[in-house]
Amino acid sequence: MRLPQLTAAQAPLTESIDAVDEHGQTRRIHIPAERDLTVYVDKRELVTLMTLGAHPEWLTLGYLLNQRLVASVDEIESVTVDWDVNAVSVKTREGIDRIEERTARRVVTTGCGQGSVFGGLMDDLDRVELPSGVLRQSQLYAIVDAIRLKESTYKSAGSVHACALFRGTELALFVEDVGRHNAVDTIAGWMALQTDAPRDHGDMLDKVFYTTGRLTSEMVIKSAQMGVAAVVSRSGITQMGLQVARRVGLCAVGRATNKHFLCYANPQRLLWDTVPPPAPERR
Amino acid sequence: MRLPQLTAAQAPLTESIDAVDEHGQTRRIHIPAERDLTVYVDKRELVTLMTLGAHPEWLTLGYLLNQRLVASVDEIESVTVDWDVNAVSVKTREGIDRIEERTARRVVTTGCGQGSVFGGLMDDLDRVELPSGVLRQSQLYAIVDAIRLKESTYKSAGSVHACALFRGTELALFVEDVGRHNAVDTIAGWMALQTDAPRDHGDMLDKVFYTTGRLTSEMVIKSAQMGVAAVVSRSGITQMGLQVARRVGLCAVGRATNKHFLCYANPQRLLWDTVPPPAPERR
Repeated sequence: MRLPQLTAAQAPLTESIDAVDEHGQTRRIHIPAERDLTVYVDKRELVTLMTLGAHPEWLTLGYLLNQRLVASVDEIESVTVDWDVNAVSVKTREGIDRIEERTARRVVTTGCGQGSVFGGLMDDLDRVELPSGVLRQSQLYAIVDAIRLKESTYKSAGSVHACALFRGTELALFVEDVGRHNAVDTIAGWMALQTDAPRDHGDMLDKVFYTTGRLTSEMVIKSAQMGVAAVVSRSGITQMGLQVARRVGLCAVGRATNKHFLCYANPQRLLWDTVPPPAPERR
Repeated sequence: MRLPQLTAAQAPLTESIDAVDEHGQTRRIHIPAERDLTVYVDKRELVTLMTLGAHPEWLTLGYLLNQRLVASVDEIESVTVDWDVNAVSVKTREGIDRIEERTARRVVTTGCGQGSVFGGLMDDLDRVELPSGVLRQSQLYAIVDAIRLKESTYKSAGSVHACALFRGTELALFVEDVGRHNAVDTIAGWMALQTDAPRDHGDMLDKVFYTTGRLTSEMVIKSAQMGVAAVVSRSGITQMGLQVARRVGLCAVGRATNKHFLCYANPQRLLWDTVPPPAPERR
């Protein structure tokens, strides 16, 4: 597979500012960056994404993939980010077929939380073949613990969403952004660049997706499109997120904090391999 | 002002489902609805919004206003929602000028968290004239308390964002949705239908906007566009949200829980009229 050339653009992720608290006292705090990144594909302006700016190249790749504008990263020759002008220039090897028509279609689904993916992705869902394997309870706890220990922009500045991809119980990539959809697109872009074979963890799923955000239809659809059969969230699930998870056989777990969790869809994919914790407080 | 005819479409906001907890025990829980609503303007398909579905007519009006597709609700003759087909039909009095061109432009800014509003709204910002008046500390506490006492989908099902508009210290409208942007668009649509004059609360601001979500650039821009000079959030602020608040002179308050808060922008618009609470735990 021909991999695209990527820049490694850097930008500060937090800013230190003065805020005034309820006592009228000034406090120095950190807030997350939020910057616009305008995507140009073969010199044509496509979209402006609002992003924290941690991984703009992977974000751009993931956006193009999840929008179905490219089918594979090897259609892309280079992704060049320049924060001086808040722009990313994407050069394709052979151009994008019917890009006007396919981006005009985007108008139909700007509903945020869905971005523009809804129509197209729902159509593709029934073609999705998710890998077999189980989500072990011990694996789930290891994932939640790894996230808890992660140093993050959230810990220093709050107000960002985090997503992560795990291989077995190992944290492969941790991404934060001001938009949930950007974090998952960034993971999709990074995953598309990986050339290693699926790893063997016995009966345990190789790839598990974690998000601090809600399991909306968009998150579940994008996880399934990435070939990820289990998603874990600190938050809850929406009705359509649940419908999609059931439809594609994806194991959807939410409210995952400490040793607690709720499995919303396909609990038969959970393997209860650890001693249950003390009775939880009802949530 | 000629007001549009609106349906009052109803749909269930939560669903009761069975989830499996960490003990393998089945628990009956509630999750929020998430449904697609496709907007047709004069029979032309415009956009599909993913929404909880509590106030689809106001959401549609607010979306058209915030997208700058209509300048005033009196351009609209009727808004007809039909949940049987998940569609809303908008009939304008004289059509929308250059709608193809103006919706095609939308492609440029599908960045979620911004929806499609970024380009247009930033340009308009410098024309925004916000009302004078202060946010009283006692008013802020009354607002936080009113939200705390509100029965909500969030309390029963979680996983939704709430926005509210206050007149002085009185809760005028409380809106929840699966998308922050939908909740604020719904409030914008409702506000556009109000024909009463600004109310006199002395030096106290008449209109204050509350959101459970972060103060991103989109939230601050939309608040300013609604003529709201103070926003209060349970969450934090992003860098661009702060930049916009400073630029338009909007009083931005976050981390508002119990008696605690942080004022990020224009603290000179805060009036310290109550005894400070005991020293806060550092957040």
